[in-house]
Amino acid sequence: MVLAMKTIRTAIFGSGFMGRVHLDALRRIEHVEVAALVGTNRPVIERLAAEFSIPTTTSDYQQILADPSIDAVHICTPNTQHFAMAKAAFLAGKHVACEKPLTISVDQAQELVALAAGKALRNCVCHNLRYYPMLQHLRRIREDGELGEILSLQGGYSQDWLLLDTDWNWRVDSSISGASRCMADIGSHWFDLAEHITGQRVTTLLADLQTFHPIRKQPKQTVESFANKLLGPEDSIARPVDTEDYGAVLFHMGQRTRGSVVASQAAAGRKNRLHIEIYGTRASAAWDQERPNELWIGHRESPNQILLKDPSLLHPTARSYADLPGGHTEGYDDTTKQMLKRFYASIAAPDAPAEFPQFADGLRQLSIVSAELESHKTRRWVDLAAL
Amino acid sequence: MVLAMKTIRTAIFGSGFMGRVHLDALRRIEHVEVAALVGTNRPVIERLAAEFSIPTTTSDYQQILADPSIDAVHICTPNTQHFAMAKAAFLAGKHVACEKPLTISVDQAQELVALAAGKALRNCVCHNLRYYPMLQHLRRIREDGELGEILSLQGGYSQDWLLLDTDWNWRVDSSISGASRCMADIGSHWFDLAEHITGQRVTTLLADLQTFHPIRKQPKQTVESFANKLLGPEDSIARPVDTEDYGAVLFHMGQRTRGSVVASQAAAGRKNRLHIEIYGTRASAAWDQERPNELWIGHRESPNQILLKDPSLLHPTARSYADLPGGHTEGYDDTTKQMLKRFYASIAAPDAPAEFPQFADGLRQLSIVSAELESHKTRRWVDLAAL
Amino acid sequence: MVLAMKTIRTAIFGSGFMGRVHLDALRRIEHVEVAALVGTNRPVIERLAAEFSIPTTTSDYQQILADPSIDAVHICTPNTQHFAMAKAAFLAGKHVACEKPLTISVDQAQELVALAAGKALRNCVCHNLRYYPMLQHLRRIREDGELGEILSLQGGYSQDWLLLDTDWNWRVDSSISGASRCMADIGSHWFDLAEHITGQRVTTLLADLQTFHPIRKQPKQTVESFANKLLGPEDSIARPVDTEDYGAVLFHMGQRTRGSVVASQAAAGRKNRLHIEIYGTRASAAWDQERPNELWIGHRESPNQILLKDPSLLHPTARSYADLPGGHTEGYDDTTKQMLKRFYASIAAPDAPAEFPQFADGLRQLSIVSAELESHKTRRWVDLAAL
Amino acid sequence: MVLAMKTIRTAIFGSGFMGRVHLDALRRIEHVEVAALVGTNRPVIERLAAEFSIPTTTSDYQQILADPSIDAVHICTPNTQHFAMAKAAFLAGKHVACEKPLTISVDQAQELVALAAGKALRNCVCHNLRYYPMLQHLRRIREDGELGEILSLQGGYSQDWLLLDTDWNWRVDSSISGASRCMADIGSHWFDLAEHITGQRVTTLLADLQTFHPIRKQPKQTVESFANKLLGPEDSIARPVDTEDYGAVLFHMGQRTRGSVVASQAAAGRKNRLHIEIYGTRASAAWDQERPNELWIGHRESPNQILLKDPSLLHPTARSYADLPGGHTEGYDDTTKQMLKRFYASIAAPDAPAEFPQFADGLRQLSIVSAELESHKTRRWVDLAAL
Repeated sequence: MVLAMKTIRTAIFGSGFMGRVHLDALRRIEHVEVAALVGTNRPVIERLAAEFSIPTTTSDYQQILADPSIDAVHICTPNTQHFAMAKAAFLAGKHVACEKPLTISVDQAQELVALAAGKALRNCVCHNLRYYPMLQHLRRIREDGELGEILSLQGGYSQDWLLLDTDWNWRVDSSISGASRCMADIGSHWFDLAEHITGQRVTTLLADLQTFHPIRKQPKQTVESFANKLLGPEDSIARPVDTEDYGAVLFHMGQRTRGSVVASQAAAGRKNRLHIEIYGTRASAAWDQERPNELWIGHRESPNQILLKDPSLLHPTARSYADLPGGHTEGYDDTTKQMLKRFYASIAAPDAPAEFPQFADGLRQLSIVSAELESHKTRRWVDLAAL
Repeated sequence: MVLAMKTIRTAIFGSGFMGRVHLDALRRIEHVEVAALVGTNRPVIERLAAEFSIPTTTSDYQQILADPSIDAVHICTPNTQHFAMAKAAFLAGKHVACEKPLTISVDQAQELVALAAGKALRNCVCHNLRYYPMLQHLRRIREDGELGEILSLQGGYSQDWLLLDTDWNWRVDSSISGASRCMADIGSHWFDLAEHITGQRVTTLLADLQTFHPIRKQPKQTVESFANKLLGPEDSIARPVDTEDYGAVLFHMGQRTRGSVVASQAAAGRKNRLHIEIYGTRASAAWDQERPNELWIGHRESPNQILLKDPSLLHPTARSYADLPGGHTEGYDDTTKQMLKRFYASIAAPDAPAEFPQFADGLRQLSIVSAELESHKTRRWVDLAAL
Repeated sequence: MVLAMKTIRTAIFGSGFMGRVHLDALRRIEHVEVAALVGTNRPVIERLAAEFSIPTTTSDYQQILADPSIDAVHICTPNTQHFAMAKAAFLAGKHVACEKPLTISVDQAQELVALAAGKALRNCVCHNLRYYPMLQHLRRIREDGELGEILSLQGGYSQDWLLLDTDWNWRVDSSISGASRCMADIGSHWFDLAEHITGQRVTTLLADLQTFHPIRKQPKQTVESFANKLLGPEDSIARPVDTEDYGAVLFHMGQRTRGSVVASQAAAGRKNRLHIEIYGTRASAAWDQERPNELWIGHRESPNQILLKDPSLLHPTARSYADLPGGHTEGYDDTTKQMLKRFYASIAAPDAPAEFPQFADGLRQLSIVSAELESHKTRRWVDLAAL
Repeated sequence: MVLAMKTIRTAIFGSGFMGRVHLDALRRIEHVEVAALVGTNRPVIERLAAEFSIPTTTSDYQQILADPSIDAVHICTPNTQHFAMAKAAFLAGKHVACEKPLTISVDQAQELVALAAGKALRNCVCHNLRYYPMLQHLRRIREDGELGEILSLQGGYSQDWLLLDTDWNWRVDSSISGASRCMADIGSHWFDLAEHITGQRVTTLLADLQTFHPIRKQPKQTVESFANKLLGPEDSIARPVDTEDYGAVLFHMGQRTRGSVVASQAAAGRKNRLHIEIYGTRASAAWDQERPNELWIGHRESPNQILLKDPSLLHPTARSYADLPGGHTEGYDDTTKQMLKRFYASIAAPDAPAEFPQFADGLRQLSIVSAELESHKTRRWVDLAAL
């Protein structure tokens, strides 16, 4: 039976940081073959294809969509390209895994969700951070009521790779990345986790955004995400910036639950610190992406706990998210592996529920970002539809 | 010369948790004699007087104010009593150290500040947390420009001693403690530190407050602050509560600096966690009251730092705030000692600048609390006068 | 040029925990094809072969060695089988990567090292822990003199998976795993790091070993490493145990440097805690495998540092050991990937130096374990040849 | 009844770092009056006497012993003076609290213990570190069996204040401080805790000591303990040093329990890091003096715990060792206060058991230091009498 299982043929669009993360993850997943790479950076895609015996390379994604032997595609290109590629892929009958943000507007995302609804195709938006084993454990103990009713959430997502006005990346440019940068890129990860873990929805929010550097110096060469920190001083030109470096948001989840979050790409010393704290009537939890194999569980009437990742101590339903024994740390690459493993398992089992974030989740995050932009502009609280 | 220095005679009003903290601190300070205790809990004040050879006890503070041999008084009573006591003390020519919040209204605080301005009397409001050695070090390196320009601040103050609806203390009752509880009691410590350390002022804020338990069960016996967690179930009566358990605030400090803070007395597992993070253009800093002898300093271009309290590593101007060698931890009681040591030194040296928080600082915090209450009510941003 | 690079065909012997770790790593490495799996657990190897399109499976490793298209083999079987397999593989002209301990005796290891010396074949012993990025950074800053002269080392390796007398695994049985368990299995990782990072050799040592459970209860079914913690109570038989649960070692590295280490498989709450502290005349360093993306650097005259993994902050020669941007954690699986990537790069570049642990390093660790056993037996200090 | 309680009159011998720590603690303790200071540094003792209204100062301790109004004395002078002072104080009928090490030889300590046994006088040796609240909690849960049977202990005590060969203090000089420095000064604290917490005795040990700097540069001025780090370069003379900078010890506690500890005064970045880890069959515990308000409790079958100091969570018998509410940290000065508070309570209640370390405990630590010196010299295991 096992032997008869079909290998799924897939293609990756984009060869930047995220494209390579997807390639690495796919190589680790059973019954998947990376059959094609699509990209405009020819030297990189040729090299990757040679290294991993990938038969096809092209800069024309339509060519891949036209190939009936390709079952699924991964969209890892800059944000403004997501919509057209995902739409075309659906129309061509491909399963689609798309990097976040799903699109650069709510309207586009709604169109994709509607399109997906009518087809027997799997759709995944890559909120991979859900798949740190400790977060799946947290979600499950919350479902079991171990935290009681949630009273408040707080936290943030802090990085320093865009601290200086000499830092540049395509994400800074709203014409390529969309109107929101910091909130769309990293704030959305936080809200995805907050809603995924609590099972509750943000109902109203107030946002305060800030562009610390309204002018940045753009180097004359292209800079890949995060790679700017390894560059020396370069020839550059001053460019006005209209995307935010920082955002702080207060929010409600219904009548009782309150929340607060800050996202910043200008926080010296914080490299990739997503931290989330959830306070319930019975217990609390805190987690920090810079120490992802630990989960703090807070108690009023007994000592607090630190759960170090150990399959034997994870909730039984969370155990499959950890592939290594206790204390053997799992990292960032492993989260993408866990997410995509479930995406491909669902392709092989069309009737099974989707145990990964879907386009509807991508739309949800775009709605939140849209409300943040509106709140910042009007300086008022903005209500969200529950969706 | 040293031998000729006068010993200052002082009295403490109130024998609850804070009153005993002041007594302990005063015993450790040179040239001070605790000469009288004032309180309504006779057994406690009689016991303390016997233990520490304090000659006078009374329940009538006016009797103490009438005694010309008393130089200074400490007001450690419930909040609603502060104003009348402080005013009377000034009029009687006493130096005054008053617990925070200074009063329960901005008007009262303004009156006290005006009264103090006309007299050669020292006035101190007890924002003792400034005197953790690491915070004085932080303030001084910020003054030296080591953080650069401040871009953002975030943090909070979390406790769990009022988590349950069976938790009760006089602070819950607005008729004794004033209209704000969580923000006035602990949020004010955070804002005092934020302004003290950065040297900047909050210019506008938006607050979102929440009372998670609109009804609490009041035990029939009196409960001292924090002592509720040691009590068993008691006879109680249901009481409506109009003071907040939680508050989240967004704020600006001028055109560029942004901030966010959350205070909660319903955060399971957090005992007394004041944490503050300050992000600058050159470096960042983070500090947590639950690990007060450490200061995190964040860098973009070099490894982050953890400064463990060590006089030889402190800024020279901060060194006098640490009384013990490196790694010998200093705790909560030591902060009050440091603050009051400076208060008494200033009494002995009338021309020296005040190196402790003054009534004007207490007024400042009341103004912020007042703005928070207004913002919550109107659901709008509220501007603050710079003061 | 890149395209012309030959893909190296490899086989994995063993399908237990380590075998699967190797398979996962090999899938992530460029120009490598896993062409065969060898194992006695047929269902597992058939399943793995199907999942990852591996053409050949067999329980007869000699069949693989006879296949001229196979370039390299990975030995991931129980310890007593390593010697025969590695020797046969060399004789068949294969490059060999062997799990640690290399063999179960110094004599066997010496024979393998001698055999390797005469052949143009790469040999790797899998001390993968060297390849946490922070440890490579540490090694390089030590080489640059940033720690000064090393005065002392201390640390340990603590686990809890064999705490109870109901815990069982083949490693407990000296007839399968050799005379030493705790020191050979985990103590050897510590000493490998100590010598790798400092560049110094242990010259004399004193060991104190202990078997806390001289009798253990062996389940009637086979138990894979670490899997015991997920088992319920089982039918079992009492078995005497002659391998140690714990070992403490004092050691010298030459005339000045002193050291101390403890390894334990009976340390409740420690899952996989290898920690090492190195104290030099100019600075110190500490690292803990349970938080592997952080390196503590201790200073006498300035604040201590915490370096969070960030390629832009790593020593230039250590940068290639990190594949992800700052704060994107790399975990246990990533260390094996880094080690084997270098092993395969060396096969493709026969004249390049070996940047991975070799059989001589495996022999070194066996010599240390042998000295530990002798010291424990004689209760005396034992000198080591420098090798 | 309370009012009738006698105030105990006490004198402090020595005005260095420890003398001032005792003075500070005594001011905080009920029913105690510091009536005299004894010291050779006249300016310091005159200043302290003026500051704290202490009537008598002298450089002649015999004068104090002859005063029948003095009930108790505190010996805070260099180690070689302890024996004569303590003996004379006993003979004069005074209660004695003596800094550690109690004496500089086992014989002297035995004589003091014998002398004390014949008198109704309280004797205390100042192993104050026992009185961190978390350690008292740990001792009590161990007594209740929560750790099960102890399998192993490990840890150390690391400082950096004598790292450099330009660091000097009287403790370096064996003619003033005795034959052992690092082990007598800080190693003894560790062993005192180990035996106090576990209730077990070291039965055999092996020690490896090291003097990293056999020559040190002595400044021409006197240097108080720890103050060297605040000095600039000074005129100095090269002096041979025969006391150890570092010691590592392996030990047994009976047939089953094993241990390992390292003490160092040359560990860059460690300021005062006493850390102890205790591994039992049911649970484990770890504690670090640099974060003294936290206790780690390790578990095999459930998440680990971090107990933050909170009276409501402490073992009921440990609760009186914490004077402040949850999360209000207690530091180094507070341990001396707790210890001496119990010493004075016992003077007032002659029939009550001694809840503080006594001279017999000081003798015990001298026996361990003596065994360490012998083991290092002979390079052999040395057995200890159980005492």
